[in-house]
Amino acid sequence: MLKECLENVREKHLLIHSITNYVTANDVANCILASGAKPIMADEKDEVEEITALSSGLCLNLGTLQKSKISSMKIAGKKAKSLQHPVLLDPVGVGGSLLRTTTALDLLHEVHPEVIRGNISEIKALFLERGNDSGVDASQFDFVSEENLNESVAFLKQCAHLYGGIIVASGAIDLVSDGNVCYVIRNGRKEMAYVTGTGCQLSGLITAFVASNMEHVVESVVAAVCTMGIAGEIGYQHLAEFEGNATYRNRIIDAIYHMDGMMLERNAKYEIR
Amino acid sequence: MLKECLENVREKHLLIHSITNYVTANDVANCILASGAKPIMADEKDEVEEITALSSGLCLNLGTLQKSKISSMKIAGKKAKSLQHPVLLDPVGVGGSLLRTTTALDLLHEVHPEVIRGNISEIKALFLERGNDSGVDASQFDFVSEENLNESVAFLKQCAHLYGGIIVASGAIDLVSDGNVCYVIRNGRKEMAYVTGTGCQLSGLITAFVASNMEHVVESVVAAVCTMGIAGEIGYQHLAEFEGNATYRNRIIDAIYHMDGMMLERNAKYEIR
Amino acid sequence: MLKECLENVREKHLLIHSITNYVTANDVANCILASGAKPIMADEKDEVEEITALSSGLCLNLGTLQKSKISSMKIAGKKAKSLQHPVLLDPVGVGGSLLRTTTALDLLHEVHPEVIRGNISEIKALFLERGNDSGVDASQFDFVSEENLNESVAFLKQCAHLYGGIIVASGAIDLVSDGNVCYVIRNGRKEMAYVTGTGCQLSGLITAFVASNMEHVVESVVAAVCTMGIAGEIGYQHLAEFEGNATYRNRIIDAIYHMDGMMLERNAKYEIR
Repeated sequence: MLKECLENVREKHLLIHSITNYVTANDVANCILASGAKPIMADEKDEVEEITALSSGLCLNLGTLQKSKISSMKIAGKKAKSLQHPVLLDPVGVGGSLLRTTTALDLLHEVHPEVIRGNISEIKALFLERGNDSGVDASQFDFVSEENLNESVAFLKQCAHLYGGIIVASGAIDLVSDGNVCYVIRNGRKEMAYVTGTGCQLSGLITAFVASNMEHVVESVVAAVCTMGIAGEIGYQHLAEFEGNATYRNRIIDAIYHMDGMMLERNAKYEIR
Repeated sequence: MLKECLENVREKHLLIHSITNYVTANDVANCILASGAKPIMADEKDEVEEITALSSGLCLNLGTLQKSKISSMKIAGKKAKSLQHPVLLDPVGVGGSLLRTTTALDLLHEVHPEVIRGNISEIKALFLERGNDSGVDASQFDFVSEENLNESVAFLKQCAHLYGGIIVASGAIDLVSDGNVCYVIRNGRKEMAYVTGTGCQLSGLITAFVASNMEHVVESVVAAVCTMGIAGEIGYQHLAEFEGNATYRNRIIDAIYHMDGMMLERNAKYEIR
Repeated sequence: MLKECLENVREKHLLIHSITNYVTANDVANCILASGAKPIMADEKDEVEEITALSSGLCLNLGTLQKSKISSMKIAGKKAKSLQHPVLLDPVGVGGSLLRTTTALDLLHEVHPEVIRGNISEIKALFLERGNDSGVDASQFDFVSEENLNESVAFLKQCAHLYGGIIVASGAIDLVSDGNVCYVIRNGRKEMAYVTGTGCQLSGLITAFVASNMEHVVESVVAAVCTMGIAGEIGYQHLAEFEGNATYRNRIIDAIYHMDGMMLERNAKYEIR
């Protein structure tokens, strides 16, 4: 199934619209291209409806949020829904400011994205409505670990159930839940946290996978998460001793570019709870 | 002649002003630096006139178009014209939204850039005033190929003639026409399409080449297009098996950095029609 | 002392807030991550006060200045001061437009950043209130060299003394003065000038170092400048013959990622005047 999901992305070559931040936009674009889909970034409210209509999936990312983009996100989100295109929300830094929290909650209510992807702190900030005091990373206390795995899985299932959509909490262990089951994914490497924007890239990738696999949404999300994690593992193996986080950034995208369905199937490490 | 064009860029070290998108701005800056020219990006309407006046060429790029940038582009464009600095328009995604189409047409009329560079779909959208339904890439139907080369050449010549400027349609085969002749350039590799922003980079590079060779405008455009294509060929040769589009992005810029006039002369593959 | 400064950055893992330009924001983020600190970029005036409050240091960068960011910079700057967080100003391109000059001077007066980092032209434009006619680079005439070192040192000391803060003039020779002494630093390589944003990265790095070493501010600035310069030297050694400025960009950040206190101590080349 994961294999088919990746192959569909490669074959369909769909256009993915991102309204995203300027810190990681370039990497998101190259990551989407590496998957076989095609990126377009546009955030001006007067054109997003048309750009969304040309595209097959929409990724809304709250990094470097500017007020002028909020209405663009709502307009594009509603258009995407009316066309039955999948919408993903990446609530970067939610809980870190009232503006981000309010915007994220508004988007949940007004657009109801099919998929939400954040780190566990962001997911907690969204669903427990409490502050996130460590910027865009999961606060130390909030990492999903083998020790707190049961509670984390239960929490994520509950959030997804209440929300009525798919929620991805990514980190050292990635969790994906649709409210019924929870995939626990153990791909990736801790060094990925030293590369800015791996989360944003994953959000773009998930959008491309879901748009290309509308009849297998959960599986396609899992396929995207495993693709990113395995790319992190392969990319790391190719690093010379003197290479660090900047080269690693490229190696991860390079590994996505070369990923094939068999590699994905063989290396995916997940269990369903 | 191509050799002299490149050498002039390296020797004159001119400052090039770009009003451009936030997805590829960093790569455009490094590409301009690799050529020997110097980049400056500035888009606030209150300062663009001064920044343009400090510079020797202006590159207007419609990616991630925001309404606040449109008047900046017009002000900077008019200032550049008044100073006889060359202006290039990269109509990214034109035809994809009314805003982009209107803005591009306004810039043609109000600023009249010396050079327009897009893919063939964007050129068609500009001059045939029809929609572009595949985002920022040339739609499949519209690729310039050996099969449709005669018609494509004729079309481009006609556009350039009517427009009264130089038009570049880049793709697997690149075309450059000034309305009288058409250069058909067969450098580059198809894998460049998996690197975001190679078009934007080429636009920045052409602006640097033209600004440094004001007495040989067409030749300098051809020199820039060949430089980019050859860099794509050289960069590809240096890729390890596990390296993909992200590393390729750097290898292309690296190859521009190391390009010299002799390499350019020797490897340029073009014919004049 | 330099060793301890770097180790504190690595151990404290502080969050650094940047209000910065979209050309180099990604590299600044990866550079801060390479140092062991954590980046957050946010520039919307409605949220910057909260984001600054979550962070431990603030970096204000005038590249691609937009008027909407100016009040954000002032609000964030005042908040940071009220919390005794260090503030750094990178007056990119100051002197190149009235808007940048006015904004920089306003920030000096209203926020009074602890540290200012620019090239010598920018420092002159700020303190001599004259134009900078070569964009964001130091104009030829203004490079700090062995020939004009005495005057340059005297000038920088005087500026820092009058200003009442630390001023960094970076270039082939880097100068750091607090008004009493001037560190003359001879690390780095001239090829770094072909990589866009090394100055912006250095500004982000200095902010991280100062925030992590509030009791040794001057020493931490010197440690950051030496770290960047040594990384430029190490990164260059690892370049293959065909690699140019794009790969060099990554190698510099990679070298910061692998820098340790002993390497920094051993390779730092500075004298105090």
